[in-house]
Amino acid sequence: MSALFLPLDVSTLSRPDEPFSLNVAEEVPVSLLFNGIFPYGTMMMTPADLKDFAYGYCMTERIVASVADIRSVDVAETQDGLSLDISIKGAALTRLMRRDVRMRTGHSSCGICGSETVPAYDAVAATPLPDGPRLSVVAIRGALHELRGWQTLNAATRMVHAAAWADRNGNIHMIREDVGRHNALDKLIGARACHPDADALHGGFCLLTSRYSFEMALKTIRAGIAVVVAISAPTYRAFRAAEKMDQTLIAVARHDGQTLFCGGRRLVW
Amino acid sequence: MSALFLPLDVSTLSRPDEPFSLNVAEEVPVSLLFNGIFPYGTMMMTPADLKDFAYGYCMTERIVASVADIRSVDVAETQDGLSLDISIKGAALTRLMRRDVRMRTGHSSCGICGSETVPAYDAVAATPLPDGPRLSVVAIRGALHELRGWQTLNAATRMVHAAAWADRNGNIHMIREDVGRHNALDKLIGARACHPDADALHGGFCLLTSRYSFEMALKTIRAGIAVVVAISAPTYRAFRAAEKMDQTLIAVARHDGQTLFCGGRRLVW
Repeated sequence: MSALFLPLDVSTLSRPDEPFSLNVAEEVPVSLLFNGIFPYGTMMMTPADLKDFAYGYCMTERIVASVADIRSVDVAETQDGLSLDISIKGAALTRLMRRDVRMRTGHSSCGICGSETVPAYDAVAATPLPDGPRLSVVAIRGALHELRGWQTLNAATRMVHAAAWADRNGNIHMIREDVGRHNALDKLIGARACHPDADALHGGFCLLTSRYSFEMALKTIRAGIAVVVAISAPTYRAFRAAEKMDQTLIAVARHDGQTLFCGGRRLVW
Repeated sequence: MSALFLPLDVSTLSRPDEPFSLNVAEEVPVSLLFNGIFPYGTMMMTPADLKDFAYGYCMTERIVASVADIRSVDVAETQDGLSLDISIKGAALTRLMRRDVRMRTGHSSCGICGSETVPAYDAVAATPLPDGPRLSVVAIRGALHELRGWQTLNAATRMVHAAAWADRNGNIHMIREDVGRHNALDKLIGARACHPDADALHGGFCLLTSRYSFEMALKTIRAGIAVVVAISAPTYRAFRAAEKMDQTLIAVARHDGQTLFCGGRRLVW
C-alpha cells in the first residue's frame, strides 16, 4: 500500500540555504472495476480506507440500493496506483451495465458522474430524509471542538479534507480523510453503513471540513443524512437542495461561531 | 446568464433570532457539446468567463493543439443551466470522436477525465517547459500581495478559488474565479491564450489560490507554464510531475512566507 504522505526537502524564499522537511499528502489513481470485468473509471485519492470508499461510492452513485448488494471488495496494486474490484449482485450489475457511460476518469467521486445531465432538484432523492434527530446546539459545538483532534492525516500534512460522524451527544465516532472532499465523504458513508454498532451512530450528524457543493449535498441526501455541519460555506445550489429536502444545514461552522442555513426545526437551544 | 452569487438569510446558532444576509456563490451545470452534435459531459461551474473556459479546457484536455483549432464557442441557456457549443476544426473533431468515452458528467474539469488510465509521469507532456523566465523573488511577493485585491467574487462570497497571471515584474494582468479550482485554472489558460497582447504576458507566472494536485500540474504543464505559485500545498504526485518537467513550483505561499519546492534555478534573489 502507498504511503499516505511523504517528506519533501523544501526551503523558504527568505532562507533558500536552510532546507527543512515538509510532509505532503500523496494521491494515487484508484481504478474501479465491477465483478472483475466491468471497468468504471479512475479517481485520484488518498490511498486509505478504500473498502469504505467502495461501499460509500456504490451507494451515493446509486450503483447499489444498500450494502447488502455488495458481495466483496478487493484492493490490488496496479502499475501506477491501485484498483478496486467490487463484486455486486446480479440485478445491480445489470442496472449498471445499462448505463450509458462505460468508464470515466475523474479526480474525485462527485455524485453526478455518469449521468448525462445533472439531476433536477425535484429528483434529488426518492426518499425523504428522516424527521429526526433533535440535536442540541451544545452537541454540535462539542463535535466541532473535538474535530481537529481526530484529523490525524491533516495534522501531518495540513492539506486534506475530512468527513466525520458524531452521535447525538456530539461525540465523534469515526472520521475519514482524503485529498478530495468527495472521497472523504464517500469513505465516511461507506464506513457508517458497515459499522457494527448502528445504534451508537443513530440520530447523529455529519461533520465536513470542506465547502458544501451540490454534489456533496446529493451524496448526503442519498445517504439519508438529515443533519450536516460544514466548516466552509455551501453553494447556493447545495443550499437549495438541502432546503428542498428539508435537510438541516449548518455551515461556515467553527468552534466559535456557526451559521444556520436551513432546517432549524431539528435543533434545540 | 445566472447570477454569480445570491444573498441568503441566515443566522448564527448563538443568535438564532437575529437573521442577517450572507452572499453564497452559485454553481450551474455547464454542458459541453462539440460541433453541435457531439455531447461531452456536464460540469458544475461558476457561470462566468465560459468562453475562456471552453478555450482553456480544450487545450488542457488536449482536444485541440492550439486555439487556432477552435472556430467558435456559443453559450446558451438550458432548462437547468448552460451549454457550451464548441466548434472545432475537422481533424481535432475526428481525433475527439475516436476517444473511448463519449460523454461524462463531472463537478469540475480535471485534466485526466476521459482517458482510461492516468498518464504516467513520463508521459505528462510531449514538450519540455521553456527555460525561462528568470523571476525575482520580489516580483513573486509583490503579486501575492496584490492577489487578494483582484479576487472580486471571493470578496463577495469568501468561497471561490482563483487563478491569476502576473507578468515578470509581478503585476497581475488577469484573474479568473470559480467554485472549482480546475475550472478557474482552465478559464485563466483560455483567457491567456486569447489575450491580444502576448508580449505583456510573456515571461510571467501563474498564481493559484488552491492546492496543487496532480491534475492541476497536468494542466499547467500542458499549457506550457514554467512557474507556478500556489497559496496552498502541492500533493506529492503533483510535486513529482513538476520536478520531472523542471517546472518551478512555489507553494504554501502567503504574502509573508513562501516555500520553494523545485525549480529554484528560475529565481533571482
